[in-house]
Amino acid sequence: MTAYEQLLALVRPIYVLGSIGRVLRWDAETMMPHAAIAYRAEQLSELHRLVHERFTDPHLGALLQAAEEEPLDPIARANVRELKRDYEQARKLPSEFVAEMARLTALAKKAWAQAKRENDFQQFAPFLKQILDRIREKAEYLGYEKNPYDALLDQYEPGATVESVGAMFRPLQEALSEVLFTVERSSRRGGRDRLRVPVPEERQREFGAAVAAEIGFCFDAGRLDVSEHPFCTGFHPRDVRLTTRFRKEEPLSSFFAILHEAGHGMYEQGLPEEHVLTPCGEPASLGVHESQSRFWENCIGRSLPFWERYFPRLQEAFGSAFREMTLEEFYRSVNAVEPDYIRVEADELTYNLHILIRFELEEALVNRRLDVAELPEAWNEKLKHYLGLEPPEPARGVLQDIHWSMGAFGYFPTYTLGNLYAAQLRAALWRDLDGVETLIRNGEFAPILEWLRERVHRHGRFYPPSELIERATGAPASGEDFLAYVREKYLPLYSGG
Amino acid sequence: MTAYEQLLALVRPIYVLGSIGRVLRWDAETMMPHAAIAYRAEQLSELHRLVHERFTDPHLGALLQAAEEEPLDPIARANVRELKRDYEQARKLPSEFVAEMARLTALAKKAWAQAKRENDFQQFAPFLKQILDRIREKAEYLGYEKNPYDALLDQYEPGATVESVGAMFRPLQEALSEVLFTVERSSRRGGRDRLRVPVPEERQREFGAAVAAEIGFCFDAGRLDVSEHPFCTGFHPRDVRLTTRFRKEEPLSSFFAILHEAGHGMYEQGLPEEHVLTPCGEPASLGVHESQSRFWENCIGRSLPFWERYFPRLQEAFGSAFREMTLEEFYRSVNAVEPDYIRVEADELTYNLHILIRFELEEALVNRRLDVAELPEAWNEKLKHYLGLEPPEPARGVLQDIHWSMGAFGYFPTYTLGNLYAAQLRAALWRDLDGVETLIRNGEFAPILEWLRERVHRHGRFYPPSELIERATGAPASGEDFLAYVREKYLPLYSGG
Repeated sequence: MTAYEQLLALVRPIYVLGSIGRVLRWDAETMMPHAAIAYRAEQLSELHRLVHERFTDPHLGALLQAAEEEPLDPIARANVRELKRDYEQARKLPSEFVAEMARLTALAKKAWAQAKRENDFQQFAPFLKQILDRIREKAEYLGYEKNPYDALLDQYEPGATVESVGAMFRPLQEALSEVLFTVERSSRRGGRDRLRVPVPEERQREFGAAVAAEIGFCFDAGRLDVSEHPFCTGFHPRDVRLTTRFRKEEPLSSFFAILHEAGHGMYEQGLPEEHVLTPCGEPASLGVHESQSRFWENCIGRSLPFWERYFPRLQEAFGSAFREMTLEEFYRSVNAVEPDYIRVEADELTYNLHILIRFELEEALVNRRLDVAELPEAWNEKLKHYLGLEPPEPARGVLQDIHWSMGAFGYFPTYTLGNLYAAQLRAALWRDLDGVETLIRNGEFAPILEWLRERVHRHGRFYPPSELIERATGAPASGEDFLAYVREKYLPLYSGG
Repeated sequence: MTAYEQLLALVRPIYVLGSIGRVLRWDAETMMPHAAIAYRAEQLSELHRLVHERFTDPHLGALLQAAEEEPLDPIARANVRELKRDYEQARKLPSEFVAEMARLTALAKKAWAQAKRENDFQQFAPFLKQILDRIREKAEYLGYEKNPYDALLDQYEPGATVESVGAMFRPLQEALSEVLFTVERSSRRGGRDRLRVPVPEERQREFGAAVAAEIGFCFDAGRLDVSEHPFCTGFHPRDVRLTTRFRKEEPLSSFFAILHEAGHGMYEQGLPEEHVLTPCGEPASLGVHESQSRFWENCIGRSLPFWERYFPRLQEAFGSAFREMTLEEFYRSVNAVEPDYIRVEADELTYNLHILIRFELEEALVNRRLDVAELPEAWNEKLKHYLGLEPPEPARGVLQDIHWSMGAFGYFPTYTLGNLYAAQLRAALWRDLDGVETLIRNGEFAPILEWLRERVHRHGRFYPPSELIERATGAPASGEDFLAYVREKYLPLYSGG
C-alpha cells in the first residue's frame, strides 16, 4: 500500500465516526426525549474524544508527510492538502484547551440563554470576557499573518481574511444604504404583515415538502422533520436530513426555511459519492454551503417566475386569505424590505447589514479595540448607523444570537459570503443557461440543479472556496453581482410612488 | 486507582459506543431514508469493530484478573463477574469467525427473504446448512459441558441449558394440550374476527400511547414510533424508544404490540441509573426482558379488570363497531384461543407450543439428529402433533421466522421463558399486594410497577436470571404458575357450552 492509501484507510473510520456524531446531533434536535440530554452529551463527547484522538495521531502526520512525496493524481493531491490542513488545525489546539473551551462554552450558553430571557447583558458579560480571552489564545495557537481574527475566519472559510472579507463587504454597505434610502422613501413599502395568515401545520408541511422535491431535493435519500431552529445535516449523500419549524401564523416563514434547508440538502446530496469519506467528498466551506441555501431560498424562491408558477398552488394549499391577493401583491410581500432588529428574520437586503455589524464588532473585540463593557452601546450605535433603528432591548439586540456564547467568532461573515456567492453564481447561471426564467416558470429545475452540481457540488473540497467560486463563475469572488442583483430587483419594486 | 476502578473506566466508553450503535439501529428502523441502507451498515460495522477491539483488549483481561483479587463490595463483585463473562465470550470467538458469520448471515437473510416470498424452502436450505456448520463451530468455541446447544442458549439466557429449559417446558406441553382440548370442544370458541374493525391510525396511536403512559411508561424519557416490526430499545434509562406498526383493520394487534413494547420499555426505564454503563445497570437476560413485556401485555393487558377500566374508553376511541359488543364478548375476543400457523400472531397459550416446536427442532439440528433436508417435514409433523394443524405452505411454516437466517439459534426458548417468568411474577405479586385486581380496575398501576422495579428492574444483572426470578418470587423458576394461570383463566372461559 502506498502512504496515500494507508492515509485514506486511517482516515476513513474517523470520517465514519464523525458522521455518526451528526446522526446523534440530528436525533437530539428532532426526536430525542427531553430527559436524555445529559446522556446524549456523554455519547457525543465520547465520539468527539475518539475522533480527536485519532485525528491527532502522529502516525497520521507521518503518513501525510510520506504521501506528499508520492506521485499523486490531482484528487489525491487535494485530499492530502486538505487532510494536512485539518490535521494541523487539530494538532495546534492542546487538548486541555479544547476541554476548557467545551466547559466554558457549556456554561456560557446557559448564561446567555438566561441573560436573554431576563433581558440583562450584565449576566452574560463576564462569560463573554472569558470566552474572548480564550478566543484570542485560540488565534495564537492557530497562527495568522496579519490579524488574529484571520485565524478565526479561516476555520470556517479557508483562506478568508479581514482584508479579503472587508474588501467584499465595504462596498455593500454604501450601496445597500442607497437602496434602503429609496425603499424608505417609497410609498410601496411594507406588505410583510399581509403574509400573517394562519395555515395548519400539515398544509404547510405538504406544500413545502412538495416544492422541495420539485426543485430537486431527493426524499428517497433524505427527510424533513421539525426542530426548534431549522437546519440541515448530511451523514452521506444518500442520507440528508432537513428540519424546519412551523409557525401557524407565518406560513411563508416556514416555507422559505424549507427552501433554504433544501438548498443545503441538495448540496449534500450532490457531493461526489466516489470521494465519500475523504475531503474531496466534503462541502467546500460554510460560505459555499450558505450560497446553495440562499440561492434556492432567495435567487429562485423569491423570484417572480417562481411565484408565477407556485402562487396559484399556494393559494390552493394555504386557503382563502391568499386568494384575495394578486400575484404582484404577493411577490412584493415576500420581498418586503423592512429594517428590523432580528437578524434571522431580516429580508435579503438588510440581512447583510446585520452581518456587517457583527463582523465589525467581533473584529474589534478580538483586537481589543472594543471592550465587552462597551459592546451594548457599540451595538446600538451601529444599528442606528446601518439600519436607522433606535436602541432595542438587549434580548432583541446584542443578546439575540447564540454564536458568541459558543465561541463561534469568525462564523457570521460566512452568511454574507453565502449571499454574495449565491448572487455571483446566479449571474453566471443566467449567462450560461438560455431562458432560466422560463425554466423556473415551467418548474424545470433540473438544468439549474445540474449546473450547480457541475460547477459546485461535484468538486467537494477539491478547490479552496474562493477558487471554486472563481472557476464556477469566471470571476474572482466579489460583491458586485450581488449589488447588481439587488439594484435590478429592488429599485423597480420601490421606484415611483 | 484500584484495578476495579480502572476496569470501569476502561469499560465505560465501550458501553457508550454500544448505546450509540443502538441509536443508529433505531434510526435505521424508524427514520432513515431508504437509500441510506448501505452506508448505515458501514457506520454500524465500524462501531462494532471498535467495540469488539476494545472489549477483547488483553489489558481488560488483566484488569479483570487484578480486580478479582481486590476486596470488593457486592455490586463490584457482580460487575466483575459479568464483565468477565462477556470478556471471555468475546475472546472465545476469533475475529475471522465473527466476520465470516456476519458475511454469511447477511447473504442468508436475503436468501431467506426471497425463499419466503417465493414459498420455496430449497432456496434457503443451502444457507441454513452453512449456518448450522458455523453454529456448531460457535458452540465449540464457546464451550459447554453436556450439549453444544447449551452454549447457544447461554448466550441469550445465562445459565440456561437444554436440561433446565426442557424441565420447564416438558410439563407445559401436556397441560397446554389438555386445555386446548377443552377449548377445541367448546362452543364458545372464536371471536377474534370480531376485533377486525378498521380504526384510523391516529386514533390507534393516541389510545395506545395514552394507555402506555397510564401503566407507567414515561414519555419524557421515551417515545413511540412506527417500524415494520415492533421493538423496544434503550440507550439509557432516560432514553427508551418503543415502536409498533399500525394495522388499520386490526386495531387490537397494534394496541397489544404497544403494551408489549411498553413492558420492555418500563424495564429499561427502571434499570438503576447509578449503575449505568456497567453490567449492574443492564437488563438481566432476554428471558427476563420478555417477562416484563408479557406481564403487561398478557397478565395485565388481557385481564378482565383491565378491560373493565379501558373498554368504555376503547369504545369511545375506536368507534361504533365496538359499541355493539359487551365487555364480556370483548374480553373473550382478546383471549380467543385459536391454533394457527403464525407464531407472532398466536394467543398466549398456543404461542408456547410454537416455541416448543422450534426449540426441539433447533436442538436436533445442532446435534445432527435432524438434517436440514428433513426439516420441513419435521416441522409439519410437530405442528400436527402439538397444534393439530395440517401442513402449511413453507412461507407460513418453516420459513416464517427470520431468526435462523441470522444465526440466532438458542434464542427462541427465551420467549417462553419470558411467559413462564411473567406468570410466576404475577402469582407472587398477587400474593404480595392486596387487591391487585382492584388496583388494575382503578388504573392504579404505580404499586404494580413499583413492585416490579423493586423485585426485578433495579437489580440489573446483579443476579443471574434464574436467581433473580427465584428471589423475586420465592420459588425456583418453573412452569407451574403459568399452568395454574392458564387453567384458572381459560377453563372457565371455555367450560360449558
